[in-house]
Amino acid sequence: MDDVHVILKEGERIDDLLSPSFKIIQHQHQFRFTIDAVLLAHFVQVKKNELMVDLGTGTGVIPLVIAGRQTPRQIVGLEIQNALVDMARRSVQLNGLGDRIAIEEMDLKEAPTRLGHGVADVVASNPPYRPLGKGDANALNAVAIARHEVYCTLGDVVKTASKLLKYRGSFYMVHLAERLADIITQGRNYQLEPKLVRFVQSFAREEAKLVLIQMVKGAQASLKVLPPLVVYQSPGCYTEEVYRYYYLEEKEQSDE
Amino acid sequence: MDDVHVILKEGERIDDLLSPSFKIIQHQHQFRFTIDAVLLAHFVQVKKNELMVDLGTGTGVIPLVIAGRQTPRQIVGLEIQNALVDMARRSVQLNGLGDRIAIEEMDLKEAPTRLGHGVADVVASNPPYRPLGKGDANALNAVAIARHEVYCTLGDVVKTASKLLKYRGSFYMVHLAERLADIITQGRNYQLEPKLVRFVQSFAREEAKLVLIQMVKGAQASLKVLPPLVVYQSPGCYTEEVYRYYYLEEKEQSDE
Repeated sequence: MDDVHVILKEGERIDDLLSPSFKIIQHQHQFRFTIDAVLLAHFVQVKKNELMVDLGTGTGVIPLVIAGRQTPRQIVGLEIQNALVDMARRSVQLNGLGDRIAIEEMDLKEAPTRLGHGVADVVASNPPYRPLGKGDANALNAVAIARHEVYCTLGDVVKTASKLLKYRGSFYMVHLAERLADIITQGRNYQLEPKLVRFVQSFAREEAKLVLIQMVKGAQASLKVLPPLVVYQSPGCYTEEVYRYYYLEEKEQSDE
Repeated sequence: MDDVHVILKEGERIDDLLSPSFKIIQHQHQFRFTIDAVLLAHFVQVKKNELMVDLGTGTGVIPLVIAGRQTPRQIVGLEIQNALVDMARRSVQLNGLGDRIAIEEMDLKEAPTRLGHGVADVVASNPPYRPLGKGDANALNAVAIARHEVYCTLGDVVKTASKLLKYRGSFYMVHLAERLADIITQGRNYQLEPKLVRFVQSFAREEAKLVLIQMVKGAQASLKVLPPLVVYQSPGCYTEEVYRYYYLEEKEQSDE
């Protein structure tokens, strides 16, 4: 327990990351990871020995989940908020993943200059979803920065992803389904062609809230639209697929 | 039977249009309407007293199905192939819809000049889906013209729709899901903002083949993604929704 207490700061707690048995440090009252990040981490395909960059990694949830499922050479998580960088680094340490995940404090717009152009095989992002409204600029807390385009717009994220990626590299993003046309337009502005989408619906008969999208740098136009991912089969009860993301993969892996 | 024989030419036959009890003349061995047109006709929303234009109307299936379900002031179906224009006109006559549907022989690219700019409340189209490949240009039969971009490209269709539409008017189209990014890009090139999409899957677990899309002229960006329309619940057996399109609406209407 002493080790755990050393790693935690005031107001923080350690939560199960569930799949596969990793732990994550989060603040009790501040930004915590959402299902959106978990769905994205299961949508990303990254091969052995590839370099992956996560833009706006927050508490590091996407690198941690991916490190448990796939074996990229290195995952670099970029985060602009110092307190979250610090928390994510301690989560990496807590899980003994320091050789596979690096967390860097960085404005993602500086990433191509600092990390290099065309260096990444895969880029992922669960970016802020909503444009900054008038008056919102006052609410500069961690949650607002994660949800609203305070420090970066959709265009910034897509442009950065494109610059970091190798030719034929993939950018995976989760975003609001309602912004799909903006995502496609911005992608094409920066040579990223949408190749695969999967919409996310809370229930089978509801409209989609989110979209999971893979865009490939320099690819030809031809989009594959997967059947939607439905989160709940009834209120409070996950569908089999999402239940598996949270619980079964942990068991499968711990049986190995 | 004499009336029917007068209206039919060699190789043609009269088919049930099913919903709502209309008949349609089609050629036994040439282009016949597909489920794509039926799905589009059920996706289109056109209000009483509005003017609707159907681009590339073929045998007139979309005007006929819509005239049975909704009450626009007038539906104008444009078709470039003379033999199909003639067949569609006779189907309109056969159903006694001459006061509600007009079929015009026209290259859709000439439509804004001939019909006027900003005249339509609603435009619909089930256009050719596939770019013209090398060598395809020789196959200039009615089916090839309906399926391939022989006489008009996606860009031509979208541009024509935008010119014909009033500000805030809606363009409804069915197309290949794989071309969604091209559709959105072309729409935005011509002031048509995607507002509503519904993907069409053959089966619940398969990827989407088609997309039904509504684009609104001059609208703000914000896309609504409906749950997919699944056509078959098992091989050869329609889902309840599609079965209703073909059979039940006819009964409901004939009971009135």
